[in-house]
Amino acid sequence: MKAVVHVGQAGMEGLSVREMEVLQPKAGEVRVKLKTAGLNHRDLFVLVRHKPTDPPLIIGSDGAGVVDAVGEGVTGVLVGDEVVINPSLGWLEKTDAPPEGFEILGLPFHGTFAEQVVISAVNVAPKPEHLSWEEAGVLSLAALTAYRALFTQGQLREGMKVLIPGIGSGVATFLLQFAKAAGAAVYVTSRSAEKCQKALELGADKAFDSNGDWEQELGGEKVDLVIECVGAATFNKSLKQLRPGGTVVTFGASAGDVVELNLRDFFYGQFRLFGTTMGSGEEYKEMLDFITKHQIKPVIDSIYPLEQYKEALNRMENAQQLGKIGFYI
Amino acid sequence: MKAVVHVGQAGMEGLSVREMEVLQPKAGEVRVKLKTAGLNHRDLFVLVRHKPTDPPLIIGSDGAGVVDAVGEGVTGVLVGDEVVINPSLGWLEKTDAPPEGFEILGLPFHGTFAEQVVISAVNVAPKPEHLSWEEAGVLSLAALTAYRALFTQGQLREGMKVLIPGIGSGVATFLLQFAKAAGAAVYVTSRSAEKCQKALELGADKAFDSNGDWEQELGGEKVDLVIECVGAATFNKSLKQLRPGGTVVTFGASAGDVVELNLRDFFYGQFRLFGTTMGSGEEYKEMLDFITKHQIKPVIDSIYPLEQYKEALNRMENAQQLGKIGFYI
Repeated sequence: MKAVVHVGQAGMEGLSVREMEVLQPKAGEVRVKLKTAGLNHRDLFVLVRHKPTDPPLIIGSDGAGVVDAVGEGVTGVLVGDEVVINPSLGWLEKTDAPPEGFEILGLPFHGTFAEQVVISAVNVAPKPEHLSWEEAGVLSLAALTAYRALFTQGQLREGMKVLIPGIGSGVATFLLQFAKAAGAAVYVTSRSAEKCQKALELGADKAFDSNGDWEQELGGEKVDLVIECVGAATFNKSLKQLRPGGTVVTFGASAGDVVELNLRDFFYGQFRLFGTTMGSGEEYKEMLDFITKHQIKPVIDSIYPLEQYKEALNRMENAQQLGKIGFYI
Repeated sequence: MKAVVHVGQAGMEGLSVREMEVLQPKAGEVRVKLKTAGLNHRDLFVLVRHKPTDPPLIIGSDGAGVVDAVGEGVTGVLVGDEVVINPSLGWLEKTDAPPEGFEILGLPFHGTFAEQVVISAVNVAPKPEHLSWEEAGVLSLAALTAYRALFTQGQLREGMKVLIPGIGSGVATFLLQFAKAAGAAVYVTSRSAEKCQKALELGADKAFDSNGDWEQELGGEKVDLVIECVGAATFNKSLKQLRPGGTVVTFGASAGDVVELNLRDFFYGQFRLFGTTMGSGEEYKEMLDFITKHQIKPVIDSIYPLEQYKEALNRMENAQQLGKIGFYI
């Protein structure tokens, strides 16, 4: 089968489309014939983390398709089922951290940028009927991350005010959609006027320049919750917008890992900071129920043929997208 | 009446024992004739925050005594009642942050280093019977801070492992006693071998040098909760001892306000950081019930005559104490 494979040299130079062996599902596993796949920032990191001496690896965490083989002992999943893939491996219940052995599909195990993928049967779920194949293929990792960040960690409730700095990423657009659906007021920032405009069309209550004066933009209004995935460039600006007792949830640091935190301001503000990553199987199911109830569809930036993986990865690396980038398999 | 009053010059130079007017309780207030009072770090900060141009101020947040006058409309408090004073003014319910107008007794309102204090009737509670006057006088601010940090914010439960860096302060000794009473394993650090020894006598499971190698001291064991009141000197060492999904509660930064926080380590660890201060009236009542149920008594470092306030303040400023410093009025 055809697949996007990383081997040897770190980075995009080590990537190529190759023929790989079609695997058989073992006990408890299923094989999915993929129709679409989705790109995540993680796929860029994987190209660095996967070592030159490691065996060839099919990258990719997100995908959707049709079950075409079922291993021994699998119940509740049948050949022909239309499914989405939950890339959270070995983390079933909603706990405060993943258990030992937790991995994300696409490193160290073969991922979804391929005609077929073999995965545990607990990691497939019926494709939501309101989603197209393109939408289903780009859903999982970002939507699950957004869901855990907002609801499990951020404890978002109707009427709360949420600030989302950096609205470009796939996760950020889910955050905006989910928070609006939950009845929150949502404020977003971006360095791009075009992305601000798009966010307003998606329902954001305010959208303003990341480099501007946030306090002025918010008219001095404080927020209950900030979902912070930018990092050093915005972290302390984010903290300044919090009401006393407010919460920051952080899961990304593309603009710098290390921040200066003033503990005294933090504890006088009775602030809360929660680190989060992707979520558990339990949260994945809750997320699917949530998007079905609210008929939420992923915002798609662009869908490429799998062979054009370089164009897609470059678009993401240069932060040109608003919403998700996907592939036709 | 006699009182320790700050006026004019910032710092201890502005302090003296003076005659002050005895006030009458207004509607909803009571007057307490104090038997004992307690010293807190806050009293040192107050000497700087209270401006030379402000009117003279009686300092002090903690105290215990006998009600000697009751204002109009007060129910449930009678002249002759033996009471402890809750210095948390205007914060009644257990919320994520204090409401507007919250103040701590002793700035801007006259405090407890005096023969009498006038205070809202909701800020006195029956003196726990198992406490001496000395113990009751030094209880409130530190025990309430420790209670909120451990239980409201840290969500401490039986069987958890708790690390308390810097065991010298009054709050830290309450943290140790409360956490042990709740069935946790408690590890503490101090730069003083004597304080480590005292902590072991108070029930700490491990006590080791703050300047040592914590990972080695803990044998690689990770903790569920760190209560961090030291600040920059220990903050990142504290984070390193946390299990994935673990919590740090911070309420002090005597050894530096600003820390470098690595966001990526923080969110991959799914860590949680809670800022906290003193607590609400609701938490004060819970704390009194808790110490009564477990028959917990404050660890007393020393009790001075009120006239020796300088010796007492110096002892605290030089971090010589283990446990609470108090005054006979």
